[in-house]
Amino acid sequence: MAKPIGIFDSGLGGLTVARAVRETLPGENLVYLGDTARVPYGTRSARTVTRYARGCADRLMGFDIKLLVVACNTASGVALEALEQQLSIPVIGVIAPGASAGVRATRSGRIGVLATPGTVASGAYERAIHRENDAIRVFAQPAPLLVPLAEEGWVTGEVPTLAAKRYLQPLVKADVDTIVLGCTHYPLLSDTIHEVARELLGHEVAIVDSAEATASALRSLLEAQPEEPSGSGSLRVLVTDLPAQFRIAASRFLGAPLEGFETKAIDL
Amino acid sequence: MAKPIGIFDSGLGGLTVARAVRETLPGENLVYLGDTARVPYGTRSARTVTRYARGCADRLMGFDIKLLVVACNTASGVALEALEQQLSIPVIGVIAPGASAGVRATRSGRIGVLATPGTVASGAYERAIHRENDAIRVFAQPAPLLVPLAEEGWVTGEVPTLAAKRYLQPLVKADVDTIVLGCTHYPLLSDTIHEVARELLGHEVAIVDSAEATASALRSLLEAQPEEPSGSGSLRVLVTDLPAQFRIAASRFLGAPLEGFETKAIDL
Repeated sequence: MAKPIGIFDSGLGGLTVARAVRETLPGENLVYLGDTARVPYGTRSARTVTRYARGCADRLMGFDIKLLVVACNTASGVALEALEQQLSIPVIGVIAPGASAGVRATRSGRIGVLATPGTVASGAYERAIHRENDAIRVFAQPAPLLVPLAEEGWVTGEVPTLAAKRYLQPLVKADVDTIVLGCTHYPLLSDTIHEVARELLGHEVAIVDSAEATASALRSLLEAQPEEPSGSGSLRVLVTDLPAQFRIAASRFLGAPLEGFETKAIDL
Repeated sequence: MAKPIGIFDSGLGGLTVARAVRETLPGENLVYLGDTARVPYGTRSARTVTRYARGCADRLMGFDIKLLVVACNTASGVALEALEQQLSIPVIGVIAPGASAGVRATRSGRIGVLATPGTVASGAYERAIHRENDAIRVFAQPAPLLVPLAEEGWVTGEVPTLAAKRYLQPLVKADVDTIVLGCTHYPLLSDTIHEVARELLGHEVAIVDSAEATASALRSLLEAQPEEPSGSGSLRVLVTDLPAQFRIAASRFLGAPLEGFETKAIDL
């Protein structure tokens, strides 16, 4: 029997990771858990985020998953070690892959990171980047409002452009040539962020989406475990709350209609 | 012994209600519970909000409160009846007082309500207004992004002005003369909302803050219970999560520094 891969996020943003995984590894079965009853994690304390992350991981273990993807930057930043100690299966976060992709992309050695306050406070991106190259300068900028903007679908136009301008100002001053999107919600605003950054910096800038980097890292990890069979490419979506706009928002992040996939509300 | 008044909200926005209560009833002892580990409520389902509201009420009952103020519009909209049935003490929400104040303020009989998606979906403002006067036309507009804007302190300037413009458009089209701020976060954006509304409508508009209306309703309720002694004007603040910017955000909503008040983090 093919065991599924477990993926969890604070909410629906991690479906951008599920989407990249489905594109990179179309044969894998996925069980996605979005903690929509407690989203967002990025503005909460490390203690609370760790507690929530443990609960999500516990629930996914009930599906006999072969591997856990922490598709939430905040949880990856503050709870990855706790989850690795708690679980007997491999655990992969989104920060190390995103950091590696940033290191590969930069020419000037100056990387900007847009992330939630929780991720920025964890210092996890700096550590991950410096593990690969400690000469790189890292400028981490909290951008909390980009999360609700992405959730509401306000991803282009005046409001997101102005918010991006405000958040990018310190990264422009630092003259970065690479910006890592350190939150699974931000890829929806990628075009706006790219445009604003290019305009303010006056030169091209690489935008790194950690969802794609994570999918690549996951593929490498699975290639090292050839004994584990892949499945039929199924996707099961579990959420802790079913808000009114759930299907619309989920389809937006997944990049595909949610119809045809099993969805279920659970309590945590 | 003077029993305290219990107040709860999804997060810190309800401190605008605590502030109004302290100004109106300076002798009362207050226990405030902010469910900061699960904020916001306004984008979640009625089922989940009711579950959370019951948990908050249970915890406050442990402080032997004489009365419960549901200082969250979303919880008032979807869970007030459930709480009234659950508890043996009087329960007062923010919607009925805000609706009454709106009815008193309107001349044209056209009232706009800015609220969270959860509150708008509940239809609670329409019901409360029509209970007093069913000839009044009510236009309820969800304005979810105003919550994170208030929490981040982005209350004046380009971004909140543009967001307000977008949300106020349908209320302008409806030519309302009164706008009820149907979320405890919105009073922080009151000046911006007032300015934008006046400019777009081309005439004066009354902005109703349900925090003040609730404090007045609470005073009337207490005057009807003269046997209950008031206290020394103490305030105890309980939160389910202590995020990094807690003190700054709390002081902003309370309109006073948090120092000198007992604050405590609890698990729910």
